[in-house]
Amino acid sequence: MPIPLTMRALQLESFDGPDGLHIREVPTPTPGAGQVLVKMHTAAVNPSDLMFMRNRYGIQRTLPTTLGFEGCGTVVATGSGLGVLWLGRRVALATQAYGGTWSEYTITSATNVFPLKHHISDAQGAMLMVNPLTAWALIDEARRMRQRAIVLNAANSALGRMLIRIATLRGLASIAIVRNAAYVHELRNLGATEVFVSSDPDFFSHLAHACTHYQARIGFDAVAGELTGVMLKAMPARARVLVYGALSSASVDVDVSTLLFGTKVVEGFWLTEWIHRRGMVQVIRAMRDIQNALYPAMTTKVTATYPLETAVAGIRAYEEQMGTGKIVLQFH
Amino acid sequence: MPIPLTMRALQLESFDGPDGLHIREVPTPTPGAGQVLVKMHTAAVNPSDLMFMRNRYGIQRTLPTTLGFEGCGTVVATGSGLGVLWLGRRVALATQAYGGTWSEYTITSATNVFPLKHHISDAQGAMLMVNPLTAWALIDEARRMRQRAIVLNAANSALGRMLIRIATLRGLASIAIVRNAAYVHELRNLGATEVFVSSDPDFFSHLAHACTHYQARIGFDAVAGELTGVMLKAMPARARVLVYGALSSASVDVDVSTLLFGTKVVEGFWLTEWIHRRGMVQVIRAMRDIQNALYPAMTTKVTATYPLETAVAGIRAYEEQMGTGKIVLQFH
Repeated sequence: MPIPLTMRALQLESFDGPDGLHIREVPTPTPGAGQVLVKMHTAAVNPSDLMFMRNRYGIQRTLPTTLGFEGCGTVVATGSGLGVLWLGRRVALATQAYGGTWSEYTITSATNVFPLKHHISDAQGAMLMVNPLTAWALIDEARRMRQRAIVLNAANSALGRMLIRIATLRGLASIAIVRNAAYVHELRNLGATEVFVSSDPDFFSHLAHACTHYQARIGFDAVAGELTGVMLKAMPARARVLVYGALSSASVDVDVSTLLFGTKVVEGFWLTEWIHRRGMVQVIRAMRDIQNALYPAMTTKVTATYPLETAVAGIRAYEEQMGTGKIVLQFH
Repeated sequence: MPIPLTMRALQLESFDGPDGLHIREVPTPTPGAGQVLVKMHTAAVNPSDLMFMRNRYGIQRTLPTTLGFEGCGTVVATGSGLGVLWLGRRVALATQAYGGTWSEYTITSATNVFPLKHHISDAQGAMLMVNPLTAWALIDEARRMRQRAIVLNAANSALGRMLIRIATLRGLASIAIVRNAAYVHELRNLGATEVFVSSDPDFFSHLAHACTHYQARIGFDAVAGELTGVMLKAMPARARVLVYGALSSASVDVDVSTLLFGTKVVEGFWLTEWIHRRGMVQVIRAMRDIQNALYPAMTTKVTATYPLETAVAGIRAYEEQMGTGKIVLQFH
């Protein structure tokens, strides 16, 4: 199949959320040394994309630009180097910089593509890097700290569910926090050891009791705001909370007594930095686990799949109803 | 000299600040196994005492109680054990639990007393444990992280000044933050490499520039609130801020982007836990340094000394004008 000279891409032209997105005809990129060109099948839409669209991602980028941190496609061309190994292979990929999978073709580093096993669908393949790798990395931190349990909030999110499932597979207890009591039963069935609803009057005392019982010293926080401080306060001395998201849109708020007298730690977790710190061998190991030993624990429920033509409407719906499931964009 | 059966102590009877303090005649305590009885010469008044007096210290204690975390005195009796080594010696001491030096006699563990060299006055001896040991411990953390520079706020406090002086002696640059421009010149003379005034319009950009220049990845925060987040944001990726006080009385407030994209860390520092973690050998080494190599860098300016009779008025004045210097209580 010849590669067309131009392709359609979903470009962000202003930081107005989905309203800033437009379908544009742009030149198909050419892979440089060490890069591959991927014909995209599917791409994920993550909370980080939504943050980017509203210029809240922390990393600046000039407009127009194509978003999308991850996806699934087939390697159709390569520059010089390693990429030739992947030619013709169906792969999961992460973008090299900060986006680019929301288009018919994209280029990335040959080290950012991972061949997919047959049992992984295009839809699941689109979501294999950001969430499953984050979950794997967070659980790895818990294991490095020799913990018996993890504490997590936003437990009903796609990533929260993965954390519960991988914790169970790894023999760790999970102490889960949700906002909505409707999910308690479902998360328990998924393997959560304890599920607490943050609006319950006895929430704090129950959480603290469970954290003490399991001596749970590592927590994963996707919410920030006051909940970071509440989690940390409920956990035993020398506890550590890794903040990997900010669903509350609020700053981290922690009482000084909690930090000081417990010598506790609040720490940012960013997958990009984790990959840099732990190295590619660890990432390859993780991707193998995710497709094998941890399958299907690392799969994500897909609410809807949108072709490029209706992608903006889909992204708008996703932004309005986050938490009800993920959407996937389809290109080929 | 015989030990009287009763003694005078400054007791806290309600959590009303200095208004809760009263001079009471109480039984002189008897040292148990491993303890010593110290006839108090002088005792320090620290911000932590003020917090305790208003029930904001985080550690609960039943009333009435005698406050005072540290002081200087002579060991006049011992229980069984190590304490016999110190009998008759003039010592600096820390209390075993959470207070007790604001009285004519006090008991503490024999491991919490440190013989004083002749050149250390009773007034300075009263203040040798909390601030100098904290400063020593914080600088030790910077050295363990192989840093070339430290960042600190409340730089004009007694502890801030010690940090600047010890950093200079240890060959570390110090990037100091003050609220009041009046202290810039003085702190520069003390050895501060850079002094920034937090109310200056260019404060953040200057601070960030200096932190980048020195690749300063360790910060010491006595203020909390928004300043924690500002410091952390100004520092390079993988920076770590140790919070050891809360002069602002506010919670730690850190933007999630700052934490996440820099993989930065906020951590509580509590001297009691540090001593526990690093062990007595390290404390003995620190106390030797503080009295020898680091003398007189570790001395503190004393604004006034008060006998027990006027101690409450002195503590009230200290609470109202903290930052103008420390006061010492005198018992014998």
